[in-house]
Amino acid sequence: MNDLSWIPALTKLLGKATVSVAEDARREHGGDAWFAHAMPDAVVTPRTVSAVQKLMRFCHARRIPVTPRGAGRGYVGGCVPVAGGVSLSLKKLNRIRAINAADSVATVEPGVITSDLQSAVKKLGLFYPPDPASARESSIGGNLATNAGGPRCLKYGVTRNYALGLDIVLVDGRLVHCGGRAHKNKLGFNLADLFIGSEGMLGVIVGATLRLIPLPPARAVLVANFARAPQAAAAVNAIIRAGFLPAALEVADQFTLAAARAHRPGAPAGDALLLVEIDGQKKSVAGETRALEKILRDCRALTVSKALTDAAAEQLWNIRRDFSHALKATGLAKLNEDIVVPRGKLVDLFNFAEKLQKKFTVNVACFGHAGDGNIHVNLMVPPADARAANSRRALNALFKQILAWRGSITGEHGIGLAKKPWWPLATDRDLRALHQTVKRALDPRGILNPGKFLG
Amino acid sequence: MNDLSWIPALTKLLGKATVSVAEDARREHGGDAWFAHAMPDAVVTPRTVSAVQKLMRFCHARRIPVTPRGAGRGYVGGCVPVAGGVSLSLKKLNRIRAINAADSVATVEPGVITSDLQSAVKKLGLFYPPDPASARESSIGGNLATNAGGPRCLKYGVTRNYALGLDIVLVDGRLVHCGGRAHKNKLGFNLADLFIGSEGMLGVIVGATLRLIPLPPARAVLVANFARAPQAAAAVNAIIRAGFLPAALEVADQFTLAAARAHRPGAPAGDALLLVEIDGQKKSVAGETRALEKILRDCRALTVSKALTDAAAEQLWNIRRDFSHALKATGLAKLNEDIVVPRGKLVDLFNFAEKLQKKFTVNVACFGHAGDGNIHVNLMVPPADARAANSRRALNALFKQILAWRGSITGEHGIGLAKKPWWPLATDRDLRALHQTVKRALDPRGILNPGKFLG
Repeated sequence: MNDLSWIPALTKLLGKATVSVAEDARREHGGDAWFAHAMPDAVVTPRTVSAVQKLMRFCHARRIPVTPRGAGRGYVGGCVPVAGGVSLSLKKLNRIRAINAADSVATVEPGVITSDLQSAVKKLGLFYPPDPASARESSIGGNLATNAGGPRCLKYGVTRNYALGLDIVLVDGRLVHCGGRAHKNKLGFNLADLFIGSEGMLGVIVGATLRLIPLPPARAVLVANFARAPQAAAAVNAIIRAGFLPAALEVADQFTLAAARAHRPGAPAGDALLLVEIDGQKKSVAGETRALEKILRDCRALTVSKALTDAAAEQLWNIRRDFSHALKATGLAKLNEDIVVPRGKLVDLFNFAEKLQKKFTVNVACFGHAGDGNIHVNLMVPPADARAANSRRALNALFKQILAWRGSITGEHGIGLAKKPWWPLATDRDLRALHQTVKRALDPRGILNPGKFLG
Repeated sequence: MNDLSWIPALTKLLGKATVSVAEDARREHGGDAWFAHAMPDAVVTPRTVSAVQKLMRFCHARRIPVTPRGAGRGYVGGCVPVAGGVSLSLKKLNRIRAINAADSVATVEPGVITSDLQSAVKKLGLFYPPDPASARESSIGGNLATNAGGPRCLKYGVTRNYALGLDIVLVDGRLVHCGGRAHKNKLGFNLADLFIGSEGMLGVIVGATLRLIPLPPARAVLVANFARAPQAAAAVNAIIRAGFLPAALEVADQFTLAAARAHRPGAPAGDALLLVEIDGQKKSVAGETRALEKILRDCRALTVSKALTDAAAEQLWNIRRDFSHALKATGLAKLNEDIVVPRGKLVDLFNFAEKLQKKFTVNVACFGHAGDGNIHVNLMVPPADARAANSRRALNALFKQILAWRGSITGEHGIGLAKKPWWPLATDRDLRALHQTVKRALDPRGILNPGKFLG
């Protein structure tokens, strides 16, 4: 049982509207989109940066654990407060402070929902490219804390490529402005980058200055299905070899397509599907769509669908988005592993997934970002087996193979609790020691998001 | 006088071919492209990573300063060994270890010359975009240590956007592999980024795994001159508003153009010049060139020149490259300050430069990367005055204005010795303290590149 004697003092410090010990609030702030859950002792929802500073000063002095969270849409249990203490929700720090079109800069608080920022800048002819699948629910702060990706990373890069400056509340309550507002900046160390992707373990992101780029006037989407996976992989290579770096280049495998067909008659035939999105000037996009169609047909696509309007493009994307629903409709639990393989290993990955299916008698559905090798490998298991030894062994075999290929066991979601068991496998002693050195320097008392991959 | 009793032991440890105390070698390794110079006690030029590890272990144990250097082409004296000790040259660690086209990855040693890598990958249809002006002389390791930029940053980003993984020798000789080989990676903290741009103060980069992208099949360059600077700035905004994010978008001001005309008859007329480079699919580039020409003419360009072949594009770039020679030919010393302003402040910057000229009776030439606001402001002073109080005061006025606009005093070159006097002006106490925290954690004895912005 945790010592809770500090709660009245904290409530007095920050006010009753900011600190809650109600059971439903604590339950709501105990997990994310993954299954793990732990009750915090209190939920703190500050409305000002200064309240975050006061909270951190208070908790640092008393060694009370603080687990920051964005919108709670993570996939790996990264914001589960396993050590109790405070669940620090940034959701009420949610103002878009400024969008300056002339300078192509947005200044936001961490609780801003990603798609809200995207819509706001779009009205000004600007573009904020990072597009995690959760963009309509996840927050900029959460995106920064996990360095969120998404399909458009292939051309546009991940969240950190758009962070010009971060306001960070350090563990002891000091507020530090890392980076700035300039589109290029070589002043001192890349400290903002240290906090991006640090999963709440080094500091609390309370503000962000983001780079915006011109909104491409046009986009197009092509969807092609193939009888066999190697044909789709060959098409990926042919597209890259022709000098294309599409905005998105997505792939889906045999099991995924079969599930899609079972879920919705009329879903594409074949063993593999590619979705290609390009954007740019209107005439260029039209011409490049024709060139891409030719490449896809030359690679023996069964059918090629094209969309040259926003609405039509969204319809084709719905085929891809539907895969998640189709997999859910199988009634199986989906262990979604966001592994990354070198692009040259795409077909090997699909073959390996087939072997996994046979060896562990689980179903494996692969789909995701073919262009950068970041494929979501979904182990489909009966819900009761999700945490069973067999599933664990299958994941183990998967991650071992990924590491043998010199890929990564996580490309987008982070480690959190879900991948924590494989942290030692994916790292060596000296890299772990370097992480600990940095962690100790910035959080010497170990109160920021304890219980995750650094213990 | 430094204690030199350690030199025989180091020579014995690493061999005479690796350790030199010859005066000419020491002199050669005492500076970079800036004016500052200091003699190291020894020059160490390892040919293996293990020799770097041995060196660091040796120097760490004895608290001997080590100043790492790439090709010595920095512009701010960043590799000047002001505390003596060892000048650690990485130039003989210069192999391209592997280029894997299927995976779009290159693995290199730090001494590889940047343009050599660019040429090697180009033969395979691949592209390594970072293009500092010094690309034919500077090394990948130096580019990483300074997070080098260049004109193409606007579309393609700076060096760190291409570093997938770094091999780092820590101050105590441990070798750590940060990041990896996957195009996306969320494993642990962004530690590679901490070393990128750290100017040799946190560790020694001994290997890099770099992301490559498809080589765009075509490029085009347009050059337009304008009677007045605000017209050029309006053209920059019109290009961005039309949804273009050109590969490069360069500007030059009145003084620069006047110097160019004095240097080479036939140089462009007018008070401002823009250079626009785009790349992509051949037909798209041709169409977009026509669209850009129209925008430039609508913005009242005096003349517009276009180049649609590589050779013609290089000729137009030579106009831009010639500016440096033209400024040199004035006989004045060029204090090249790589400041960054918000893009909306371009015209204000040119106006401010005019005020500076009058107030300090120095000439000021501005040219550089208009797209991201990273303009090289060159104070042109009689060589004898380069370090005089008046020049210092003019720089002071410049940097104060830049900071008031929330720009950056360095966008590409780093701080080194040149900008060290303005480090306190550009930062606040808590940001400096955070830098010291990180520095102490990684280099507790302060032996890595001492005497720079952290003292």
